Amino acid sequence: MKVAIIGAGRVAWNLVPALQESGVEVVEVWSKSRSSAEALAKRLGCRFMWGSLDVVTCEADVYLIAVKDAVLPEVVRQLHAGREQALMVHTAGSMPLTLFADAGHERCGVFYPMQTFSKERAVDFSRVHFFIEAAQRKDEEYLMDLARALNDNEAFVHRSTSAMRRQLHLAAVFACNFTNHCYTLADGLLADADLDFQVLLPLVEETVAKLHQMPPAQAQTGPAVRRDENVMGLQRAMLANRPDLQRIYTLLSSSIMNVERSKT
Amino acid sequence: MKVAIIGAGRVAWNLVPALQESGVEVVEVWSKSRSSAEALAKRLGCRFMWGSLDVVTCEADVYLIAVKDAVLPEVVRQLHAGREQALMVHTAGSMPLTLFADAGHERCGVFYPMQTFSKERAVDFSRVHFFIEAAQRKDEEYLMDLARALNDNEAFVHRSTSAMRRQLHLAAVFACNFTNHCYTLADGLLADADLDFQVLLPLVEETVAKLHQMPPAQAQTGPAVRRDENVMGLQRAMLANRPDLQRIYTLLSSSIMNVERSKT
Repeated sequence: MKVAIIGAGRVAWNLVPALQESGVEVVEVWSKSRSSAEALAKRLGCRFMWGSLDVVTCEADVYLIAVKDAVLPEVVRQLHAGREQALMVHTAGSMPLTLFADAGHERCGVFYPMQTFSKERAVDFSRVHFFIEAAQRKDEEYLMDLARALNDNEAFVHRSTSAMRRQLHLAAVFACNFTNHCYTLADGLLADADLDFQVLLPLVEETVAKLHQMPPAQAQTGPAVRRDENVMGLQRAMLANRPDLQRIYTLLSSSIMNVERSKT
Repeated sequence: MKVAIIGAGRVAWNLVPALQESGVEVVEVWSKSRSSAEALAKRLGCRFMWGSLDVVTCEADVYLIAVKDAVLPEVVRQLHAGREQALMVHTAGSMPLTLFADAGHERCGVFYPMQTFSKERAVDFSRVHFFIEAAQRKDEEYLMDLARALNDNEAFVHRSTSAMRRQLHLAAVFACNFTNHCYTLADGLLADADLDFQVLLPLVEETVAKLHQMPPAQAQTGPAVRRDENVMGLQRAMLANRPDLQRIYTLLSSSIMNVERSKT
């Protein structure tokens, strides 16, 4: 199976070299930007195309599409003509399988690696859960095998409906994107006191380590869960000149208190 | 130095056995609740007292006070009479050293272990930063030595003003308490789809692992940082019947976009 890669962002940058190492034949990388396409193609040792989608090869058996969700339907629409028989696959958490049919393409699938990818850091795929969906059974098996080639732990390779994947992605936004933003805000607060973020790492790591031992609601600590109005009032006052952080502080604290109340 | 422990909550439960192991002579545990005092005293093999503070020994050299911040000033006020020469120490992040003088007690200090403690899980003190403050130099040295006995890595034992400690604690609330609450909310979202929280652990752990390699603002991923209005609109709609989560989603997403905007 010859695979063409559409998109050269964070997901493709991490995923495609791993797929190639596991034996996948990558024939071409396309990106809107020449420099992104060239950089990824150089890693892979394959040809690259850029700019308009008209230049993409028609010879591939599989088109793995890892572009921004907002442009995904339009990309599929443009790729369809001349590639009617190819398997088109996207990697997005929140986009339904039906977007392919809506864009006029029938043979389709989803290959969602639930992980946070950055170009600066290589991801260990043995620690990535994959969620697979396809319109046809044989394509589903092909994608399941691709995932198994990256992670031989069966417990990490899942069949998933679009609805389930959408829910997973929403949970992932809370568990990854929002927590990382909390780290960013903490980093700024420490910088105000000339302190380095590294000092928080043991606390951050212990917070996560506890999750192996108890559900997060049980692991909750801090002023809100013990209803310490004294400290919460003080901390809100410390954020008086940062109304954006103060709003987040107030909203998350009251959400913590609500959860605690609902337990009893 | 004979040490009496005032309070038998999460902090004392973790900290005091470690102090005892490092050679500290713990003579008594007091708690408002008999069962808490008894449980901790049993671990330590010392006597316990409960109920009114009148029953606390007057024979200790050091009173280590790990009670809720809200009652801390009143506890100091009540302990002062008959223990005027003793060193009184609290363990709270946000409470100033001056609270002792305000409550009538001069010889005082702070011993703040910046960590999240639960009774169900033993903390590794070699991964805890300590922040020390005292009114008198020799008491500061005594507390620094206590911390060094728990963690022999000098980089983890800090002298700190009350203002600096307060700022650290505020950052810790964002980096630990608020992130843990995001895990709780994600757990609830997964439960709605009959999915187990364990499936998110590799993502959560990778989010933290990235912090060793890049600042959190650079590590940010997800729909908000790429301004994906499409996915954000979909996810907000998915939370239509959870207005509390929807508010958090909207506020944190716009905060992520604000930080991203301010970078450029």
